[in-house]
Amino acid sequence: MKFATQKTSHPDGELVLVSRDLTTTVPVSDIADTLQDALSKWDICMPLLQARYDALNAGTLENTRPLNELSLTAPLPRAWQWLDGSCFLNHGHLMQKAFHLDPIEDADKYPLMYQGAGDNFSGPTDDVVVARESDGADFEGEFAVITGSVPMGVTPEQARDAIRLVVMLNDISFRALAPREMKTGFGFVQAKGATAFAPIAVTPDELGDNWHQCRVHLTMNIQRNGSLFGCPHGREMHFGFDQLISHAALTRTLHPGTVIGSGTVSNADPDVGQACISELRAKEMITHGAAQTGFLKHGEVIALAATDESGCSIFGDIHQHVKVEQQHV
Amino acid sequence: MKFATQKTSHPDGELVLVSRDLTTTVPVSDIADTLQDALSKWDICMPLLQARYDALNAGTLENTRPLNELSLTAPLPRAWQWLDGSCFLNHGHLMQKAFHLDPIEDADKYPLMYQGAGDNFSGPTDDVVVARESDGADFEGEFAVITGSVPMGVTPEQARDAIRLVVMLNDISFRALAPREMKTGFGFVQAKGATAFAPIAVTPDELGDNWHQCRVHLTMNIQRNGSLFGCPHGREMHFGFDQLISHAALTRTLHPGTVIGSGTVSNADPDVGQACISELRAKEMITHGAAQTGFLKHGEVIALAATDESGCSIFGDIHQHVKVEQQHV
Repeated sequence: MKFATQKTSHPDGELVLVSRDLTTTVPVSDIADTLQDALSKWDICMPLLQARYDALNAGTLENTRPLNELSLTAPLPRAWQWLDGSCFLNHGHLMQKAFHLDPIEDADKYPLMYQGAGDNFSGPTDDVVVARESDGADFEGEFAVITGSVPMGVTPEQARDAIRLVVMLNDISFRALAPREMKTGFGFVQAKGATAFAPIAVTPDELGDNWHQCRVHLTMNIQRNGSLFGCPHGREMHFGFDQLISHAALTRTLHPGTVIGSGTVSNADPDVGQACISELRAKEMITHGAAQTGFLKHGEVIALAATDESGCSIFGDIHQHVKVEQQHV
Repeated sequence: MKFATQKTSHPDGELVLVSRDLTTTVPVSDIADTLQDALSKWDICMPLLQARYDALNAGTLENTRPLNELSLTAPLPRAWQWLDGSCFLNHGHLMQKAFHLDPIEDADKYPLMYQGAGDNFSGPTDDVVVARESDGADFEGEFAVITGSVPMGVTPEQARDAIRLVVMLNDISFRALAPREMKTGFGFVQAKGATAFAPIAVTPDELGDNWHQCRVHLTMNIQRNGSLFGCPHGREMHFGFDQLISHAALTRTLHPGTVIGSGTVSNADPDVGQACISELRAKEMITHGAAQTGFLKHGEVIALAATDESGCSIFGDIHQHVKVEQQHV
């Protein structure tokens, strides 16, 4: 199934089903008002939603509408819990080499993960809001999963069954603010902005063979101001989402609608580029001794998409303009 | 005003007003169903709630009920954003001395703050759920505020007006898991459990002179298994809640219902004891070369209360039993 959320005056919007070819939508408010609502009563909703989805794809429904991506917000516009990993180890290796940092101990054994703010996700075409240009605003292309209920202490095998949906996101980071916060050991507060999501959330079966070992085996295409910035794939994620869920649930129960991210997608092959500016800057520092590429400025445009072999944009597109409140401060 | 939330089958419960002397409650569902609801439309609700509260205290209402603390959950049973500070610098100094750690740079200039999980707060009498005894479960007595809407970039002066409610809480920490997570720089995920709240949330005016410079000037009484464990006061908080809100809002808007905590209450005077086990252990390490006091075991009882000069328990009592899922592992 493919889901999206129409913008309404309510922060959680209105859930719709989207046809497999992303052309039409159908309301499901008689089954669930919002995606959080559907996730909270998944076992009851699932058969009803599946029947509606099958009919939508078969073209037998009358109350359908053409898909209008501009009318959509994040599939889950806010989450009671948002946890983000950093599970493409190549990214960490590059950052450590560029900044002459010690490797983070056991990063290949325990997933790096921070608690993020899920109160205010951005839609796929919402502005990237930046307080000051000097904050060093950056994007990060990531895949993520949205879970059902997860009991405390689940194994990765058990966690797999709790994966309800797969999404794509743009994790906004303020690089000038991160080093001080990381040094405290308390993690990121000021150094993270509102995370933006591609409009379509899909059940794992929609990915076919591109969902493998709880990883998204798709290539993400990242454009900065209309030029290709990178096209890394999700296969090199060191931990699967099953392992991330198990890690997060060691000492706590996860509630339906918990979002868990992969961290910026990154590949060892330098020819594929990268999914964030800071990784490109790290490569420049390693090669040239200094970073050459600047962070985001007012008016820039970031676009992310992940297409399958047939050219179908699985999650729809993220297409955001950068809005800097205080420029050149 | 004093608020509490009755447990219902809904995760957000049902909001009630509580009389100033904590003896009676009155429903307010005709004004706001939940505390989140009231916070989201505060300007509309406030005059109606104030009139109901005044009538409750005057004894002129008929549909009142005796307060039953056992029927109450956390005033805000879950929050879209939960940020916790560590603003009693004495606590940090003791930890650094005991563990021979370098001081956290600029901790007196920028508040230490981490993003916590607000999806599942515990009520005042809910069990402290611990996965394994070896996780080193600890309590932390804290004060906190709940905000209204806070624009990005507010000053501390502006932030003051966004403080809607003051609460008391028990921040559950798993000390054996914290050092690894702090070393990554990514902050706490596995090292924090469900935060528990005292049943009554109060508007700052209810604290009278005990609300001063956006700090809670009350003494917190902490009992472990019926014995006094500490009675530190809130005056030595290095940053006021106005400064914590301003810090949190540097790069983001805060939405109504954001909870911001003080960190464990801690005083320089050693005679007042402490609000968490780990601080007592640090003192023992400094004095005796080794910690003597153990972390929480199954069946232990933790009680927290903050009383004013007249002996009134301002926030009601936290009284939790410890439930360890896997003992002696």
